[in-house]
Amino acid sequence: MSDHVYKTVELTGSSATGTDDAIKKAVARAAKTIRNMQWFKVDEVRGQVANGKVAYWQVTVKVGFTMEA
Amino acid sequence: MSDHVYKTVELTGSSATGTDDAIKKAVARAAKTIRNMQWFKVDEVRGQVANGKVAYWQVTVKVGFTMEA
Amino acid sequence: MSDHVYKTVELTGSSATGTDDAIKKAVARAAKTIRNMQWFKVDEVRGQVANGKVAYWQVTVKVGFTMEA
Amino acid sequence: MSDHVYKTVELTGSSATGTDDAIKKAVARAAKTIRNMQWFKVDEVRGQVANGKVAYWQVTVKVGFTMEA
Amino acid sequence: MSDHVYKTVELTGSSATGTDDAIKKAVARAAKTIRNMQWFKVDEVRGQVANGKVAYWQVTVKVGFTMEA
Amino acid sequence: MSDHVYKTVELTGSSATGTDDAIKKAVARAAKTIRNMQWFKVDEVRGQVANGKVAYWQVTVKVGFTMEA
Amino acid sequence: MSDHVYKTVELTGSSATGTDDAIKKAVARAAKTIRNMQWFKVDEVRGQVANGKVAYWQVTVKVGFTMEA
Amino acid sequence: MSDHVYKTVELTGSSATGTDDAIKKAVARAAKTIRNMQWFKVDEVRGQVANGKVAYWQVTVKVGFTMEA
Amino acid sequence: MSDHVYKTVELTGSSATGTDDAIKKAVARAAKTIRNMQWFKVDEVRGQVANGKVAYWQVTVKVGFTMEA
Amino acid sequence: MSDHVYKTVELTGSSATGTDDAIKKAVARAAKTIRNMQWFKVDEVRGQVANGKVAYWQVTVKVGFTMEA
Amino acid sequence: MSDHVYKTVELTGSSATGTDDAIKKAVARAAKTIRNMQWFKVDEVRGQVANGKVAYWQVTVKVGFTMEA
Amino acid sequence: MSDHVYKTVELTGSSATGTDDAIKKAVARAAKTIRNMQWFKVDEVRGQVANGKVAYWQVTVKVGFTMEA
Repeated sequence: MSDHVYKTVELTGSSATGTDDAIKKAVARAAKTIRNMQWFKVDEVRGQVANGKVAYWQVTVKVGFTMEA
Repeated sequence: MSDHVYKTVELTGSSATGTDDAIKKAVARAAKTIRNMQWFKVDEVRGQVANGKVAYWQVTVKVGFTMEA
Repeated sequence: MSDHVYKTVELTGSSATGTDDAIKKAVARAAKTIRNMQWFKVDEVRGQVANGKVAYWQVTVKVGFTMEA
Repeated sequence: MSDHVYKTVELTGSSATGTDDAIKKAVARAAKTIRNMQWFKVDEVRGQVANGKVAYWQVTVKVGFTMEA
Repeated sequence: MSDHVYKTVELTGSSATGTDDAIKKAVARAAKTIRNMQWFKVDEVRGQVANGKVAYWQVTVKVGFTMEA
Repeated sequence: MSDHVYKTVELTGSSATGTDDAIKKAVARAAKTIRNMQWFKVDEVRGQVANGKVAYWQVTVKVGFTMEA
Repeated sequence: MSDHVYKTVELTGSSATGTDDAIKKAVARAAKTIRNMQWFKVDEVRGQVANGKVAYWQVTVKVGFTMEA
Repeated sequence: MSDHVYKTVELTGSSATGTDDAIKKAVARAAKTIRNMQWFKVDEVRGQVANGKVAYWQVTVKVGFTMEA
Repeated sequence: MSDHVYKTVELTGSSATGTDDAIKKAVARAAKTIRNMQWFKVDEVRGQVANGKVAYWQVTVKVGFTMEA
Repeated sequence: MSDHVYKTVELTGSSATGTDDAIKKAVARAAKTIRNMQWFKVDEVRGQVANGKVAYWQVTVKVGFTMEA
Repeated sequence: MSDHVYKTVELTGSSATGTDDAIKKAVARAAKTIRNMQWFKVDEVRGQVANGKVAYWQVTVKVGFTMEA
Repeated sequence: MSDHVYKTVELTGSSATGTDDAIKKAVARAAKTIRNMQWFKVDEVRGQVANGKVAYWQVTVKVGFTMEA
């Protein structure tokens, strides 16, 4: 544990459903190319409005993963 | 696009259901008097507790809309 | 009203379901020992990732309650 | 309660007397045109100096009020 | 001086030229409806990229003006 | 001195008189159960408005006290 | 006006009376050696507690003054 | 894991040796009364100066521990 | 739109001309290896001084681009 | 290099031309009395509005210089 | 100098020894794949506690390196 | 005590050894010209990297000292 080095990347996921789903989508997309993801941290929640309604959420997360030794 | 000027207003929506619903309610109320809303950004998430349970969420958002030329 | 003094404690709730449920769990646990809780304020939303998916959310809230006179 | 939507405006009051009086003046001026004000939050305290003395305080507050349904 | 109350509005100006021009455009647009503007404060500088080049700047400013007594 | 460990608690005092009095009330209430308080730090100044006037101030302070060895 | 350069210094004033008086004392002391002070901005409000009561306030301000050409 | 609720307390440790030792002392003191501490997070590093030298460091940490179910 | 995931990278551009040119240079360099850049956000403006004059500006921007599905 | 101690001063430059020119003016004025300036960092960009137009920019910078051994 | 573009990556190093060693480990690991690293900046210091003692430190740094032209 | 006015200066110390030593160097250099230093507060920890290793730490501290009456 105490020997690990982690790297963080910043991603923004979008969802027409809500905040939590936008996070899931960002993590799922990252999983295609990043192994050993460990945690995420929400940095910003924003979204788009269309016709007077919330069209979709955009959540920016920092995602941390273990760098292989 | 590059000629637009946007104005931002700050609103707080409430909901007994959750964070996303409180945002929807703030945007829906704003839509009664503001046209051309484009985006929102969450500034603060708080809420009220009653009888040891979350009674409702209160989400403060900044909402941006296009000023007409 | 204007005579009350409030105290705030900082708690982190976890949930495999989402942000709002993590808040509910933190408040519910606090209710076992704290009376007269009045409000909460979200300080940080983070979570754990396992096998390329969000495993659970961890939401840190400040919870305020009335100190008895 | 949980159905209300609030709007926030940002005001700066001035006073030769002190911080609290500058807040009172900002709220009193807002009361001429805004109904149903509920709360204020101090954002910045600054002031002007003249002849080596504090000439007046300038306090910026956010003031929240209920939007009528 | 010490009797004035100021109000602040938040605007975002856009410009294909640069940061300073985006501020000028936000202030010019505001001048159509707001009298007695006194100062501005830059809150955020961002912009759009198209075809690998900066397409335009978007500068968010808070603009303060004297409320008439 | 250099051996002490301090603990901090967060309190909100209320006062119909003003900012300083709200701090005094928070400290006075804390003194009923906490010994050896050493310092306070203001975190937030807000308040309630009623009938277009400031009804009372609410000041949140962090209060530090020496933990007994 | 537009040719001036200002310098800012950071000072902490103390007072057994309250926040506003601590600011006045910091400015008064600065006036002994600094000419042409123009403004102040509050950065931090803290204080000392003794015998379960506020003993004095300590207010940190930034003070700006015109540099002579 | 996902069922746990954590509580955070804020402590300040002091040390004539340095930053890391001040953290160790805060954690060691907390261990006398708190079980199941899991993590710490540094909030502020400051210290006292005497005779023109650093006399001791004061490090404020937030320490999180598992609340028992 | 609502299906996209964006990634953000942090870059610092330098320019002897000014702030806006430093941003352009950071974006132009990034365009050599990153496709589908959408926006930038300024995080910090600093620079080097030589012989009592500004030698060049250094502007740190976050640049967001669409991750391909 | 690793032996140097730097000092920072905070200055505000003004310009009717724009942000970059305001920085140049602050640095040029400082060069009259400070030797060995090394860097600057922008802290705040604000300005004055007159007759519905930007009258001048005011940019606050921190300027660092080497203290002579 | 003024032509360079820098990129920043965010890393977290761990160490059972202390803060400085955790930084060294993050930089050493990064050196395996990144050339021309120039500087680092500490963003967060936290750590794990086990059996009432600090088990290891985790320091998050931003590391900047020159992008090759 | 409650009559004192303090002034704060901002310094950056460098050290090839580590964070704590950089603070000591900044304070030691300041002691050559400033009397009655009382405290310091760390504002930023950064450093230089050379050949893939930490070359030296640079710690920015605010140092407070009593102004003589």
